[in-house]
Amino acid sequence: MSSQTTTMLSARWHPPSYDIRVEDVPIPQIQDPDDAIVKVTLAGLCGSDLHIYRGQLPIDKIHITGHEFIGEVIKLGSNYGPNAAQPASGRPDLYATLNVGDKIVAPFTVNCGECHVCRLGYTGRCPAGALFGSPKLDGGQAQYVRVPKAGGTLYNLSSHTSWSSSINTPGADFENHLKGIADSSLLLLSDILPTGVFAATQLLSHPKMQPVLTGRAWPPGLYSTVANNASMLSEEDRMITIGVIGLGPVGVCATVALLDDLARRDLPYRVVAIDLNESRREKMKKVYETIHPDGKGSKGEFVVQGFEDAKATVAKWTGGVGCTSIMEVVGNNGALTSAYELVRSFGVITSVGVQPPKNVPFTGQQLYDKNISLDFGRCPVRAMFPMAFELLVRRQDVFGKVGTESSLIDRIVGLEEATEMYRAFDKGEVGKVLFDPWK
Amino acid sequence: MSSQTTTMLSARWHPPSYDIRVEDVPIPQIQDPDDAIVKVTLAGLCGSDLHIYRGQLPIDKIHITGHEFIGEVIKLGSNYGPNAAQPASGRPDLYATLNVGDKIVAPFTVNCGECHVCRLGYTGRCPAGALFGSPKLDGGQAQYVRVPKAGGTLYNLSSHTSWSSSINTPGADFENHLKGIADSSLLLLSDILPTGVFAATQLLSHPKMQPVLTGRAWPPGLYSTVANNASMLSEEDRMITIGVIGLGPVGVCATVALLDDLARRDLPYRVVAIDLNESRREKMKKVYETIHPDGKGSKGEFVVQGFEDAKATVAKWTGGVGCTSIMEVVGNNGALTSAYELVRSFGVITSVGVQPPKNVPFTGQQLYDKNISLDFGRCPVRAMFPMAFELLVRRQDVFGKVGTESSLIDRIVGLEEATEMYRAFDKGEVGKVLFDPWK
Ligand SMILES: NC(=O)c1ccc[n+]([C@@H]2O[C@H](COP(=O)([O-])OP(=O)(O)OC[C@H]3O[C@@H](n4cnc5c(N)ncnc54)[C@H](O)[C@@H]3O)[C@@H](O)[C@H]2O)c1
Ligand SMILES: NC(=O)c1ccc[n+]([C@@H]2O[C@H](COP(=O)([O-])OP(=O)(O)OC[C@H]3O[C@@H](n4cnc5c(N)ncnc54)[C@H](O)[C@@H]3O)[C@@H](O)[C@H]2O)c1
Ligand SMILES: [Zn+2]
Ligand SMILES: [Zn+2]
Ligand SMILES: [Zn+2]
Ligand SMILES: [Zn+2]
Repeated sequence: MSSQTTTMLSARWHPPSYDIRVEDVPIPQIQDPDDAIVKVTLAGLCGSDLHIYRGQLPIDKIHITGHEFIGEVIKLGSNYGPNAAQPASGRPDLYATLNVGDKIVAPFTVNCGECHVCRLGYTGRCPAGALFGSPKLDGGQAQYVRVPKAGGTLYNLSSHTSWSSSINTPGADFENHLKGIADSSLLLLSDILPTGVFAATQLLSHPKMQPVLTGRAWPPGLYSTVANNASMLSEEDRMITIGVIGLGPVGVCATVALLDDLARRDLPYRVVAIDLNESRREKMKKVYETIHPDGKGSKGEFVVQGFEDAKATVAKWTGGVGCTSIMEVVGNNGALTSAYELVRSFGVITSVGVQPPKNVPFTGQQLYDKNISLDFGRCPVRAMFPMAFELLVRRQDVFGKVGTESSLIDRIVGLEEATEMYRAFDKGEVGKVLFDPWK
Repeated sequence: MSSQTTTMLSARWHPPSYDIRVEDVPIPQIQDPDDAIVKVTLAGLCGSDLHIYRGQLPIDKIHITGHEFIGEVIKLGSNYGPNAAQPASGRPDLYATLNVGDKIVAPFTVNCGECHVCRLGYTGRCPAGALFGSPKLDGGQAQYVRVPKAGGTLYNLSSHTSWSSSINTPGADFENHLKGIADSSLLLLSDILPTGVFAATQLLSHPKMQPVLTGRAWPPGLYSTVANNASMLSEEDRMITIGVIGLGPVGVCATVALLDDLARRDLPYRVVAIDLNESRREKMKKVYETIHPDGKGSKGEFVVQGFEDAKATVAKWTGGVGCTSIMEVVGNNGALTSAYELVRSFGVITSVGVQPPKNVPFTGQQLYDKNISLDFGRCPVRAMFPMAFELLVRRQDVFGKVGTESSLIDRIVGLEEATEMYRAFDKGEVGKVLFDPWK
């Protein structure tokens, strides 16, 4: 950034709705000693951007859009430096190790990394947090972006010391892996891949999934002195039947994360992936064919259908019992209702869809009568990063491509096309788009 | 039962509401080869009976009330006998081992014990099941009761071979323990004690509880090759703060189960137990004093309050963050709303209340914004029995008493008093009542 340049290109949302303008605005500056300024190399357009785009939220502040970006650090606040993160300070390492010139990827929300909530791993709900591309914090669909609490928020892709200790794959050489991974692929770490892994992780770690996963019946043996009423489960009893509702980019990531985990467990499973939209279903099929070129998983059965067909499939598969669990990756009451219809008694519904300010479509009696468990909410991306990164490396066949039938990313365009891309993405005319603000 | 006697005393519900009559009816007979006829020695009156009593359900069939009973087997269908449960048959052992004269306790629902759902441990939702004291199946508030699928349903208290193998406390002599336990105490196994243990078990086994319980941050390490971003949790981070809403008999059982489990983990905790009703709060305090005569738990803090005071307590304890998790043991929208208000982001609400046919009082946005997890539903009593029995034995100081300030059971009366007891129980004038149909 030359000293003369004081403005930059950006995409900005204008009230009340459907109004994205490409505009010159001042380059952001350090406002707080914990800030970093990042030069954006790629920014993603995401289904979540549409909630604001469509005017579904009560917002009137003009702001720069976009919560998915990757880039390079060009300025650091005064709190950075070799002595910034002494162990006694409780500050994240990155305050000491982050340098101008480092390549970074950001989660879609800021988090401090040093409070109670962050330490528990619930980084998506850090009280000092904010969502990029919201009235509270300008987003990444611009040439530069200001990152508050950058030492707690960013992942440094140039120097792994700050996070590679949490990755522990025997024999894996992540420094080398990283060299082979395109920026367009690494950008998926800012949101949709960790969110997919989050959905699969919530689902598979739920105690009501443990009977099918471990062969040990309910209840989990919490009293160490009481054995489980164990292991009379037949192979058919342990058949895992999972529904995925919503096959946008996040739904595809969730499905890949789920299939990957199930394959590692080497357990038989049946998955039905559901979307209203034919082109979304086609994409999902192509992704599955990429993962399993022989047309089927090691021990798995996988079908992609509309809801009515899926209902019939589940009834046939389970003799009317229903799915062991459901991932809801849509964010509306229609999808939640479908989830309830498909799930078995003592089933689990994990929802990562951003839900509207409407009552959820369940009576208490319905939830009681089926012994339903539900999980809602935002992905704590910063905490999911190690798992998501591992999956990204392992599944470059899916996550490494742009513009193919099976790729999640449809195209990379200049920021000048933002207005048109929002329109086309909203209409379902394009898949996932990335902006290169320097193109 | 002499051959002349063909009728028995029973309490029957009459439509539309508030009409319990003590009536002579025919003694039930074997209708199916899997049936047993049980002579009832004690039957419980329970908060759940009030849903039907008050006419809250669309029922018009006159039927015998009561889903909690203990008694003695007096007749068995033709499917019982030494050769009835060959391993190849898949039939529960009890078809071979149950004898006329055996003392039994029944869960509040019938379950076959030999289907997929039962094998998973979800016995409360067996497709062949039915609730005692409902239009579908006459209840236990009578001198005799017919038990369908008795080989899958009953626990034999005379011969432990069918279930003691699942109890494995080193050094414990359950046969001897059993001798010291009153029938009024064993009756608690039919519903309220297992349901309390179920609530505590669901809560403590939820993955979102694991950070505070284990010291390992979210996410749970599902990929075996990825280490958790572990163990930077401070002692204060790991403080477990739990709210219990509703201190009827089930709420007290759930609280005792919870405190018992937390004490065994030897972790610091804070529990706030909440009820609208002063006398319910007083009972809870007395129970706590019984468990911890010194006025406090080993590492715990425990207070009993109304909702507004509890809100202030939780705010003070957690600096505004909220409870780690909540047990809802009421069954109405007021209690669910209170649960949402008190719980933290990434919190868990476990509900065992029987919920009404009304929309739950949450918008999708509220659930998303706080990353809420919810569990609903009926206790699978048959599956919870080993854990509940162990707790019953260990906490005879609470569960072994009748008619004291700290006992769950208020009094034992004859069945003739059923009409008056339903009235008084509904008005909150008496605590838990047991009927001795032979008194
Ligand atoms: N929890 C998080 O942290 C997080 C992160 C990213 C995205 N999200 C949310 O996840 C959801 C999915 O994101 P996306 O980018 O994939 O969105 P998207 O809009 O691209 O995809 C949603 C898909 O759901 C389908 N759909 C709509 N209604 C349906 C129904 N009733 N049944 C079946 N399918 C239906 C649509 O056809 C579409 O393909 C959105 O709500 C998004 O805001 C949440
Ligand atoms: N899930 C199961 O398998 C199962 C088994 C047994 C009972 N239950 C249900 O559990 C619930 C509790 O059973 P119980 O026998 O203890 O009932 P109960 O009626 O004796 O106790 C309920 C308590 O909740 C209190 N209460 C009501 N509204 C409240 C509010 N808004 N905030 C705080 N407290 C409130 C009441 O004052 C009362 O003390 C009932 O709904 C019952 O039907 C469920
Ligand atoms: Zn996104
Ligand atoms: Zn934080
Ligand atoms: Zn009961
Ligand atoms: Zn069954």
